[in-house]
Amino acid sequence: MTEQMIQAQTVSATYPVQTLNVALHERSYPIFIGSDLSLTEYLLPYVHGRQVMIVSNTVVAPLYLERYVDVLQGAGKTVAQCILPDGESFKTLDSVNLIFDALMQQRFNRDCLVLAVGGGVVGDMAGFAAASFQRGVEFIQVPTTLLSQVDSSVGGKTGVNHPLGKNMIGAFKQPKLVLADMSLLSTLPDRELSAGLAEVIKYALIGDLEFLDWLEVNIDDLVARDPVLLAEAVFRSCQHKARIVAADEHEQGERALLNLGHTFGHAIESFMGYGAWLHGEAVAVGMLMAADLSARLGWVSSLDVSRIRKLLLDAKLPVTVPDIGSDDFLSLMGQDKKVLDGQLRLVLLRKMGQGVITRDFDLQLLMQTLQNKNPGLEAV
Amino acid sequence: MTEQMIQAQTVSATYPVQTLNVALHERSYPIFIGSDLSLTEYLLPYVHGRQVMIVSNTVVAPLYLERYVDVLQGAGKTVAQCILPDGESFKTLDSVNLIFDALMQQRFNRDCLVLAVGGGVVGDMAGFAAASFQRGVEFIQVPTTLLSQVDSSVGGKTGVNHPLGKNMIGAFKQPKLVLADMSLLSTLPDRELSAGLAEVIKYALIGDLEFLDWLEVNIDDLVARDPVLLAEAVFRSCQHKARIVAADEHEQGERALLNLGHTFGHAIESFMGYGAWLHGEAVAVGMLMAADLSARLGWVSSLDVSRIRKLLLDAKLPVTVPDIGSDDFLSLMGQDKKVLDGQLRLVLLRKMGQGVITRDFDLQLLMQTLQNKNPGLEAV
Repeated sequence: MTEQMIQAQTVSATYPVQTLNVALHERSYPIFIGSDLSLTEYLLPYVHGRQVMIVSNTVVAPLYLERYVDVLQGAGKTVAQCILPDGESFKTLDSVNLIFDALMQQRFNRDCLVLAVGGGVVGDMAGFAAASFQRGVEFIQVPTTLLSQVDSSVGGKTGVNHPLGKNMIGAFKQPKLVLADMSLLSTLPDRELSAGLAEVIKYALIGDLEFLDWLEVNIDDLVARDPVLLAEAVFRSCQHKARIVAADEHEQGERALLNLGHTFGHAIESFMGYGAWLHGEAVAVGMLMAADLSARLGWVSSLDVSRIRKLLLDAKLPVTVPDIGSDDFLSLMGQDKKVLDGQLRLVLLRKMGQGVITRDFDLQLLMQTLQNKNPGLEAV
Repeated sequence: MTEQMIQAQTVSATYPVQTLNVALHERSYPIFIGSDLSLTEYLLPYVHGRQVMIVSNTVVAPLYLERYVDVLQGAGKTVAQCILPDGESFKTLDSVNLIFDALMQQRFNRDCLVLAVGGGVVGDMAGFAAASFQRGVEFIQVPTTLLSQVDSSVGGKTGVNHPLGKNMIGAFKQPKLVLADMSLLSTLPDRELSAGLAEVIKYALIGDLEFLDWLEVNIDDLVARDPVLLAEAVFRSCQHKARIVAADEHEQGERALLNLGHTFGHAIESFMGYGAWLHGEAVAVGMLMAADLSARLGWVSSLDVSRIRKLLLDAKLPVTVPDIGSDDFLSLMGQDKKVLDGQLRLVLLRKMGQGVITRDFDLQLLMQTLQNKNPGLEAV
C-alpha cells in the first residue's frame, strides 16, 4: 500500500473514534475504538522501538496483515511476522515457542514490540510471548473478533492451555495500546459475531441495566454489523471491564463477576469437546443457567430470565442446554478452576443488571437448574 | 524425620541467623541467612497454602529433600515433587513444562506454593513456573549453591534459555522468602564454591572497598567453608544486590552494574562451549579483563589489577584468558544481549570499589585488553 493510499484512507475515515483510557497507574493504556482507524494516526505514535514482530494466524494474516506491514515499513520499522495455525487447539506452549523462535532468529532485542493481529487466541499467545521474551517487551493488540475486542482488550490476561486445563499457564501483561477497529469484523463468521455479543450482553447483565435496554433496542442492527453501533457496544463493554479490572487487577475479588456464565459454560464446552461450541455460545447458555438459578433463589423473576433468553435468541445465540445429566454437569463444573478448596462459588444475578459472587445457594436449587434444559422458557 | 528430631535440631542450632529484608513495596520479602536453619521456625510460617510443589534436581534431591518433605507433611501440607535433570543444558521451556505437568497432574490450584530447592538453574525454572502457573502462584527459594545464594536470591529474575541465547525467556518473579542455609554448601564441589566466591568478589569490586579488604583477610577461611564467614559474605552480597535491585527492579540503569565481568565472561563461556567453564569462573576472568581495561583507561592502577588477580587466585578461580583471537572475542561479545542498537556498553571500574556502566572507552584499548591473556600479571 502506498503512502498516497494510506493518506486517502485517513481522509476518507468518517466514523467517529472513541478513546477509552484503561487506568492502571504506570501501566495505563488507551483503547481506540472506531472503524477504518488510521494507522499513521492511531498506531505509529505508539510504536517506540525499531523492531516489530507481527503475530497473527493463517486466517487473519492474508486478509489484513499487508496494511500493517506497509505502514510500519513505511515508517522505517524492521517488520517480521510469525503466523501461527488458527484455533484454540493450537493455544499451546509449543506455539508460543514458535514466537520465541521467530524473535530469536530475527535477533530481536529488548526494545522490540510484539503486535498481535488476530482474535483472542493470537492475543493470548502473543501477549504471553511479549511478557516472557527477555522478561518483557512491549505489546500492542489489534483484536480482529468482537469477542477479543470486548474481552481480551482489557485485563492483561495472557497465556496458553495445558492438556489438562484451559488458560493454566500465562502472565498478566498489559498492552501499550489496543486498536478496536470495527472494519476488521466484516470478515468475521456470523457465529463468531454472535459469540462476541454474548460477552457484550454479559457486561449489561452484571452491571448496567440501561445498557441492557440499549442492547434490546439495537440487537438487530448489531447482528447486521452496523459499525457505529458495534463501536458503541465495544466502548461500553470495555468501559465496564476496565472499571472492574482497575479495581482488581490480579483477580482477587470483583473481577470474578466477569465469569458470569463461565462456570456453567466451561462445563458445557468440556462436555461437548472444546471447539464444538464457541466459548461465547457456551457462556450464553451459562448466563441463562445462572439467571435460572437466580430466579429459583428469588433474586430475579421468571420474566427476567425470559427476557435474557429473548435477547440471546435475537443475538443468534443458543439458549438450550445440551443433554448432560445433572450429576455429570456438577462434576464437570467441579473441574473448573474457580473451585477453591472444595467450595463452589458462582456468579449469579442479585437482580437484573447486578452480578454477585456467592456460595450462598442451595445445592438442591442448583440441581434443579442443571436439570432444566430450556431456562427462561417456562416460569420456575 | 520425627518431630523429636526436628526439635533436637532446632535446639542444637547455634549459628547466628541474619535477616535481610528485600524492600520492593508489596513484593518485599526476607532472606534468612544462617546454618542449619530451623524449618519450623524459618520456613513453615511462610507456607500459606495447603499444596506445596518441591522443585529440585537429581543431584540435590537425594541429599536434602527428605527433611523438607517431612517438615511440610508434618505440618499437614500436601507435598509433591518435581525432580528435574541437573545442569544448565536442561534449563529449557521443556523442563519448565515438566513442572506444569506435575502441578496439573496433582490438581494444584492457585493457592499452591512452588518451593525451589537447588541451585540457580532449579531456582530460575521453578520461579518461572511459579510466575506462569495460573498466571502466578507463591514461590519460595532454598538456594543450595553459593552462587545462587548470592545471585538468584535477590532480583526476581527467572527463566530459561533458548537454543539461540541464554536467559531469553522468563519473568520477574519475587519469592515470598529465601532461606540461605550454609549447611547446604557442605556437599558443594570445590569448583562451584569458588564460582560463587567470584560473584561475592564482584559485589566488593563494584561498590564496597571495605568488603574487598574483608574478603582478602578471610578468603582462605571462606574457601575452607567456615559457615559463619560464608553467612557474612552472603549477607553482605545480598545486601548490595538488594539495594541495587530495589532502586532498579526492572533493570533500566544501575542494575547493569551487576554485569561486571559478564560481557567478557559470556564470550568466554560461549567460545569454550557452555558448561566447560562454570559461569562464575568465566565471570572471574571477565572481571579481571574489565579491570585490565579500566587500568588502560587510567581509572585504576596496574597494582589494583594485580590485587584482584591475587584475590581470585586465592579463591581458587582461573585468572588466565582462554586463547581466543581478539577479533573473535569482540564478535562473541557482540552477540551479548547487552549490545543495544550496535552500541557496546561495558561495566568497568571507575576506581577500586566503584563500578561504572560506560560506552566511553577506546576500541583500541579494548583490543589491547582482549590480547592480554594474563591480566594483572604485568603492568599495563
